Amino acid sequence: MEKLAIGIDIGGTNSKFGLVTADGRVVAQGSLPTQHYPDFDRYVEELSVAIRQLVEKAAPGAPIEGVGVGAPNASFFNGTIENAANLPWKGIVPFIEKLSPYFPECPMFVTNDAKAATIGEMVYGNARGMSDFIVITLGTGLGSGFVVGGKLVLGHRSFAGELGHTIINPGGRVCGCGRHGCLETYVSATGICRTVFNLLADHTEASEFRGIPFNDLTSEKITQAALAGDPFAIEAYEYTGKILGESLANAVTVTDPEAVFLFGGLAKAGKYIFEPTGRHLNANLHPNYKNRVKLLPSGIDGMNAAILGASASIWHNAH
Amino acid sequence: MEKLAIGIDIGGTNSKFGLVTADGRVVAQGSLPTQHYPDFDRYVEELSVAIRQLVEKAAPGAPIEGVGVGAPNASFFNGTIENAANLPWKGIVPFIEKLSPYFPECPMFVTNDAKAATIGEMVYGNARGMSDFIVITLGTGLGSGFVVGGKLVLGHRSFAGELGHTIINPGGRVCGCGRHGCLETYVSATGICRTVFNLLADHTEASEFRGIPFNDLTSEKITQAALAGDPFAIEAYEYTGKILGESLANAVTVTDPEAVFLFGGLAKAGKYIFEPTGRHLNANLHPNYKNRVKLLPSGIDGMNAAILGASASIWHNAH
Repeated sequence: MEKLAIGIDIGGTNSKFGLVTADGRVVAQGSLPTQHYPDFDRYVEELSVAIRQLVEKAAPGAPIEGVGVGAPNASFFNGTIENAANLPWKGIVPFIEKLSPYFPECPMFVTNDAKAATIGEMVYGNARGMSDFIVITLGTGLGSGFVVGGKLVLGHRSFAGELGHTIINPGGRVCGCGRHGCLETYVSATGICRTVFNLLADHTEASEFRGIPFNDLTSEKITQAALAGDPFAIEAYEYTGKILGESLANAVTVTDPEAVFLFGGLAKAGKYIFEPTGRHLNANLHPNYKNRVKLLPSGIDGMNAAILGASASIWHNAH
Repeated sequence: MEKLAIGIDIGGTNSKFGLVTADGRVVAQGSLPTQHYPDFDRYVEELSVAIRQLVEKAAPGAPIEGVGVGAPNASFFNGTIENAANLPWKGIVPFIEKLSPYFPECPMFVTNDAKAATIGEMVYGNARGMSDFIVITLGTGLGSGFVVGGKLVLGHRSFAGELGHTIINPGGRVCGCGRHGCLETYVSATGICRTVFNLLADHTEASEFRGIPFNDLTSEKITQAALAGDPFAIEAYEYTGKILGESLANAVTVTDPEAVFLFGGLAKAGKYIFEPTGRHLNANLHPNYKNRVKLLPSGIDGMNAAILGASASIWHNAH
């Protein structure tokens, strides 16, 4: 009977879970509405019951190799979720301590979303066989994972890989972290919306964006407009790619990766984000690295990426 | 009989070498004038003879555990020195291939100066017992070494750790690498001299620096002037610390180190460099890291640091 790993992705709206084979097939999946469980003990109990039922239904008796969890603000070393603004549980939640009694004898890891995506890329995706690479996740914010010598960089307290919070413009845009000018205020789904509004303010040309309030603008609308030839949308991607390319040129000097992968909503804009990012990356790279670093799309990006990423640590001892 | 490692530090002026014990005592040392040997084969032969003579004289019959070499533009993976501007041998020099016949059965590593200093800090210095830290070497340029999970970060082609070539001011000062605004054009022995000349240009106050031509200014003179209360010297260190603190705040988000060590000439300025660097580091750190990263002096900085650093890889398998 085929061995399975359980992958759990805890989001502010839903908690998705799935049963994943060593070669990355999601054989069954389910979800729970996270916000329905303000009581954390109750949440963990319902989650474990739902997972047990899924195993019974889809793969009764299958050996479970372990449980991998991806969550915002997760501490890998402590097994906790700490002060996650979009989750219903306040303060520091001892996730592993509470979940492990339901899955005795299973190894269990919790890590943040971007690190889970990075291990997923290494185990199932386009980074298979690579020892040194960077994954950039472009969602509401900008997450990242650095792999060095085949190992995910965790750091002294497992807070490594927060490239989204490097300050690239001192005194610039206000960030959710309370500081100014962080990379993710420019390069992310929300960052590109802010850029469109800057362009609308600075220029006078007509644009469909002049009829859309800030609260209704999404990066998907900007991508659609770019496909239709809207100059503000194309300029917003150019600007986003410039900032991202410049930042990656600096990140490359630190870890000398073979490749950088772009993952998440903005990466789906294809050439609109890859072309300017790659151009500005190489224009800014030190001669030692110029034209030697691959800029590639994620190989696991899609519906099951979060479950795949969360489960991947079970098959690859990336710790 | 005590086991010894051979450490060789290849500089533009001199090649220093020494016999080092596992606990970091340099039991004997010598040097050769690098520029006297335009012929590389001749250089390697003389170097090996000089080392053999040193062993015969200082520790006859002692078991040699290995040879560690620190050199500018060294490629760890290839065992080569590549296009080093300040060395007499042009192009790519196969250092390990040429030296290893003289020391058969010895492990032999070549790495760049900053990475050698970093391994030295880990094996003999103030980073003993730490798994995650950064070393910044402040010489003519700015070198760096990143240690993650107890291993030196080498990268895909061993060019990791070039923090001195992150662009911190696009379009800023011209760098030796051909680009503009690299960190080392601001934060290094030459960078702080450039800063003093900017200050002399922008302000009108009297200063001893108004009588010193650019070619005669050194970072040691600036440190002496700071100790004597010269406002330009103190302001130059404040500015240098601001740029370094801001850069380290970004580097910390990538690898989440326990500590950052400052090594080299500028670090000898003590409070003049440590105080502003630490203040600007913490002022710019993301809340996750604020006041949690130690800023410390190197524990191996001094006359034998280069030999110690070069030899350290023999005792610590940092690869």
